[in-house]
Amino acid sequence: MALIDQLIEALRVLPGVGPKSAQRMAYHVLERERVGGKRLADVLAQAVEQIRHCARCRDFSETEICAICASASRDAHLLCAVESPADRLAIEQATGYRGLYFILQGRLSPLDGIGPKELGLDLLDARLAEGEVQELIIATNPTVEGEATAHYLAQLARRHRVRPSRLAHGVPLGGELEYVDRGTLSHAFGTRSEMP
Amino acid sequence: MALIDQLIEALRVLPGVGPKSAQRMAYHVLERERVGGKRLADVLAQAVEQIRHCARCRDFSETEICAICASASRDAHLLCAVESPADRLAIEQATGYRGLYFILQGRLSPLDGIGPKELGLDLLDARLAEGEVQELIIATNPTVEGEATAHYLAQLARRHRVRPSRLAHGVPLGGELEYVDRGTLSHAFGTRSEMP
Ligand SMILES: [Zn+2]
Ligand SMILES: [Zn+2]
Repeated sequence: MALIDQLIEALRVLPGVGPKSAQRMAYHVLERERVGGKRLADVLAQAVEQIRHCARCRDFSETEICAICASASRDAHLLCAVESPADRLAIEQATGYRGLYFILQGRLSPLDGIGPKELGLDLLDARLAEGEVQELIIATNPTVEGEATAHYLAQLARRHRVRPSRLAHGVPLGGELEYVDRGTLSHAFGTRSEMP
Repeated sequence: MALIDQLIEALRVLPGVGPKSAQRMAYHVLERERVGGKRLADVLAQAVEQIRHCARCRDFSETEICAICASASRDAHLLCAVESPADRLAIEQATGYRGLYFILQGRLSPLDGIGPKELGLDLLDARLAEGEVQELIIATNPTVEGEATAHYLAQLARRHRVRPSRLAHGVPLGGELEYVDRGTLSHAFGTRSEMP
C-alpha cells in the first residue's frame, strides 16, 4: 500500500475521523504542515511510549507522580474524585479548586466487569486511611452508573470519617461533565453539598 | 509543559481540530489506542519525510514515479488534469477511468502569485509534446478560477493537437469536485464533452 494510503488509514485511529476526513488531514499535512506533522509524529510516539498513570491519583503522567500531586501549593485536605482525566481537566480549567484529585478511569459497571478494583478504589482506600483528606468531593457524572459510583465512594469516605460531598445541581441530568459549559460547572462546583 | 499537553497542542495541526477535539483525541489514544497511536506516529513520521511529488504527474508519491504513472495497464492516450490529489482520488474511486493523471496542485490565480509555472505547466507542456496523449480531460473545479485554468489548459492542448475535453454538466456550479457524490461524478466523467 502506498505510504499516503497507510497514513490515511492510520489517522482513522483518532475518534470521529472517517475515511473522508482522514484523507483531508493527510493531504493538508503533506501540502502545508510538514513541520507540524513531524512534530505531531514525534510527540505522539513519545506520548504512547512514556505516558503512564500517576501512582497517586491515576491521572495520565509521564512521571511517577504527576505535577498536581507533586505540588506543594495544593490543599491536601481536599480530594476530588472524577471519572476521567478529561473531567479533571474541565474542573481544573473552570473552577478555582486548589485541592487534589483522584481519577477513577471509569465508573462502577458490574455488567462490564468494572468493579472497585478496576477503579483503583484500593488505592483510594489507602489514601483516605492516611488521615490527611478531610473532604472527598465526588464529581462523577450525573448518570445512573455515576450516581451508583458516588454512593459507593460516599460510603468509603464515611468509613474513614472523611466528609463526602457532591457537586450541586446545575450539571444537567444525564449529561457528561466534560461537555458542561465552564460557568455551569464552576457554579456547580462552588455550591457542592454534603452528601446525606 | 506536560507531554500530554504537548500532544494536545500538536494534534491541532490537523485541519478542523480545535482544542476540545484535540483533547478528546489525545485521551482516546492514550486510553484505548496505544498500538494504533504508535502506528500513526511511525507512518506520519515516514510520510512527512519520504513523500514527495511524482516526477511525471505531480501527485504525492514516495517513489520518483508514482504507482499509477508506472503502471503498464493504464491508457497513456488519456490524460486527466485535476487541481489536487484529493480530486485525483475522487475520480479514481468514482469512475472506471483507466488513463493517466496530471495534478496541478492548485489553479491559476494571478493575484495569489499562482501562474503556469506554479502549476507545473512546463512539465505538462513537455508531456503533451511527447505526442502520446490524444485527449486531455480537464477536470478542474467549476469555479471562476477553475474555469480560467481549464481554458488555459485547453489552449495548451490544442497547441499540441491534443483534444481537450471537460467534465459534463452534473458537477454543481461553484462546488468542489472533492465533495461531489460518486454517482454524479461518475456520470459527469462519462459524459464529458469536447471543449469548443
Ligand atoms: Zn497525580
Ligand atoms: Zn505519477
